[in-house]
Amino acid sequence: MINRVRYQLTEADIPQTWYNLAADLPDMAPPINPRTGQPITREDMKRTMPDALIEQELSKEREFEIPEPVRQVYAQWRPTPMFRARRLEQALGTPARIYYKYEGDAPTGSFKPNSAIAQAYYNKEAGKTLLVADTGAGQWGSAVAFAAKLFDMSAKVYQVKVSYQQNPHRRALMETFGATCVPSPSTETEAGRAILAENPDHPGSLGVAKSEALQTVFDNPEAAYTRGSASNHVCAHQTVIGQEAIRQMELAEDYPDIVIGCSGGGSNLAGLSFPFLGAKLRGGRDLRIVAVEPVACPTLTRGRIAYDYADSGGLTPLYRMHTLGHTFVPPPVHAGGLRAHGIAPLVSRAVEEGHIEAVAVTQTSCFEAGVQFLHAEGILPAPESTHAVRVAIDEAIRCREEGESRAILFGLTGHGYFNLSAYERYFAGTLPDDALSDDVLDHGLASIPELALV
Amino acid sequence: MINRVRYQLTEADIPQTWYNLAADLPDMAPPINPRTGQPITREDMKRTMPDALIEQELSKEREFEIPEPVRQVYAQWRPTPMFRARRLEQALGTPARIYYKYEGDAPTGSFKPNSAIAQAYYNKEAGKTLLVADTGAGQWGSAVAFAAKLFDMSAKVYQVKVSYQQNPHRRALMETFGATCVPSPSTETEAGRAILAENPDHPGSLGVAKSEALQTVFDNPEAAYTRGSASNHVCAHQTVIGQEAIRQMELAEDYPDIVIGCSGGGSNLAGLSFPFLGAKLRGGRDLRIVAVEPVACPTLTRGRIAYDYADSGGLTPLYRMHTLGHTFVPPPVHAGGLRAHGIAPLVSRAVEEGHIEAVAVTQTSCFEAGVQFLHAEGILPAPESTHAVRVAIDEAIRCREEGESRAILFGLTGHGYFNLSAYERYFAGTLPDDALSDDVLDHGLASIPELALV
Repeated sequence: MINRVRYQLTEADIPQTWYNLAADLPDMAPPINPRTGQPITREDMKRTMPDALIEQELSKEREFEIPEPVRQVYAQWRPTPMFRARRLEQALGTPARIYYKYEGDAPTGSFKPNSAIAQAYYNKEAGKTLLVADTGAGQWGSAVAFAAKLFDMSAKVYQVKVSYQQNPHRRALMETFGATCVPSPSTETEAGRAILAENPDHPGSLGVAKSEALQTVFDNPEAAYTRGSASNHVCAHQTVIGQEAIRQMELAEDYPDIVIGCSGGGSNLAGLSFPFLGAKLRGGRDLRIVAVEPVACPTLTRGRIAYDYADSGGLTPLYRMHTLGHTFVPPPVHAGGLRAHGIAPLVSRAVEEGHIEAVAVTQTSCFEAGVQFLHAEGILPAPESTHAVRVAIDEAIRCREEGESRAILFGLTGHGYFNLSAYERYFAGTLPDDALSDDVLDHGLASIPELALV
Repeated sequence: MINRVRYQLTEADIPQTWYNLAADLPDMAPPINPRTGQPITREDMKRTMPDALIEQELSKEREFEIPEPVRQVYAQWRPTPMFRARRLEQALGTPARIYYKYEGDAPTGSFKPNSAIAQAYYNKEAGKTLLVADTGAGQWGSAVAFAAKLFDMSAKVYQVKVSYQQNPHRRALMETFGATCVPSPSTETEAGRAILAENPDHPGSLGVAKSEALQTVFDNPEAAYTRGSASNHVCAHQTVIGQEAIRQMELAEDYPDIVIGCSGGGSNLAGLSFPFLGAKLRGGRDLRIVAVEPVACPTLTRGRIAYDYADSGGLTPLYRMHTLGHTFVPPPVHAGGLRAHGIAPLVSRAVEEGHIEAVAVTQTSCFEAGVQFLHAEGILPAPESTHAVRVAIDEAIRCREEGESRAILFGLTGHGYFNLSAYERYFAGTLPDDALSDDVLDHGLASIPELALV
């Protein structure tokens, strides 16, 4: 008899609905239109998104039905496997039961298509022909490139320049799907030109890329802006991950004491943890949820809760969230997907309410954990995912030290096959660490709009 | 209701045994010891392989039991999914039913661990501490690196120099697993030094790398040589692929009219097709089996059936097989795994007997098919795998033209995430094609040992 290590479900188990935490988390502050000082309206939102997504974004309903064409595309890779990391447990000598939900077998190699497919579908239905995206490491950009191709649309992706340079294979993948990929800041938009005029060597940031993508959409009625994280509807789309994980934990006859996810814009963490959190808020079992972010971009651990823009240029509404300031530019760590100055309002609120803990970890400690995971489990984690691996290993070691057997579930959001040069730098000892200066942090925090501090 | 596109099995469906075609394919010519002119003996084989693998290599038994520790490792990614390529069918407007068995979700991204794990296990049991491998594109080398790590052994990999240069990420993956990777020809072995003395710019070949790996094993009693393809036992190990596919075709309530696999050393094609072929030879349903090779290395379509060495330096026994000559050096096409001058004797014999057809295709036509597949299915095929995709698409188009609905099953042996620079060259129009000159071909064929022509 072999020990079960992979918990599989069938297509009958693909969730029928997306879960919306807003139904169970009261008193969410509405986004504000900075020109009116009033909560944003459906009319405000129509410039960049179709009605169906606006409804999801503003909804307090608990569930949104997943359209059948979206579930049909999901069926190629969903339900994704949940693994019991028995070899890692053995290597650590821990009594902990370590599980990971793995999204890297999805097309383009990460969890991002869960929402990209949904957004492409709704925008296609609304008559759009071009999807515009901003992307860090390129996981969102390549997911949008894939989704656009499936729904016979074009795609244009603004990629943070430092990631564009670090990771030419992600760009090549987007282009192979037929998308156009532009390093940001670029000369293609007013926002990009303004930033380059000030600093021609600007490494880019998610906030700048977002401004460029938004401006492109404002200028083209055929175009739709796609959101890779942070928005309520994106968090909802990603809950297919956690809903499946709940079923898979049932198969394992277990329940997580701790759920761990890496945290940038927040949608991966939301996707894995919100279904568990929702169950708890409705009277279900208690558990710890841990958000792991890089010390280079410590949104939850060193940011402020305030109203701020989601982009550097101030083109978005103001969101109440943990923020490092919308002009904050983090050091160029390889976890490009975690270099976000602000986080999903739903995640922010859950942290504020004490439902989610936050911890920041260094880049080299994450790569160390990634290599340890590879050696035991055979899967190379994306740099973002190594953040969750790091804390899962730390918690498993704590179990060993305390002689406690806890169930640890973490999200392995994607594979690192595009990031081998980062691993090479790790082995060469040339990965910089803890490179966030107080000056850079203070400069960012100073950009939080004064009037909006709450 | 969504249409089923992924046929999954559970761990209970992981095959209990490997299938050995030699039981059903009579009159296999034995390998010859070139020093004695007699069939090789168990004693001859002990220099490079453990007893358990020698028994499998020489056996006429139909089934070998898979050891439980090997099945336990398999359980992480096996059974692999079989997909119905509905979107590709739609894009082609074909009445064909196209299925593909996908091995790319395995650790290291290809089908190679199926045998690497088995060989690591048996060599560990035999007390070896170092696994030595030769590799083309790096799929075999990284599988051995993974397997060595799991069984707490070291690994040393000789990688064909042109692939080593084309594909630094595969090398980085091997090194991340802790393996040593050496570009071949190298100065580390007599065989490598001899070749470099003649031609310092030698691009390398699988035959040269094999000589270097063998010499390393001859010089170190702690070391074992691992075989990535061609050998009987390797073909047997890979039959987990086809055995699962038979079960999955049952789930699909279908049966392939055509099975297609890319063909280098032959183990992938063997793995997918031999269980179907064995069923046919034992009175089961007829079907076509197609081996697809590059025109740059046309072993089956332009080679001769003869006794020849498996390596360039003449360190192996003589095998009766299709061969281009053991000194043949193919042009540096990106499908490094298909640059083999000789092929598995079992595959060769099945071709000779008319059970398998062979076809050669050009590199650019394969990349064209790979992109078409990506756009429909969202999975980027490895350059080797695009050869099977090419012929699957051609057969599906023929179905359209003839108004026939046939079931086409092909092997998608691995993903191409490490090969994006090759795809970039394809889009840039700088991929060379049909670069095999008659001179190079004749030079290779002339190296087939005279005495051994049969």
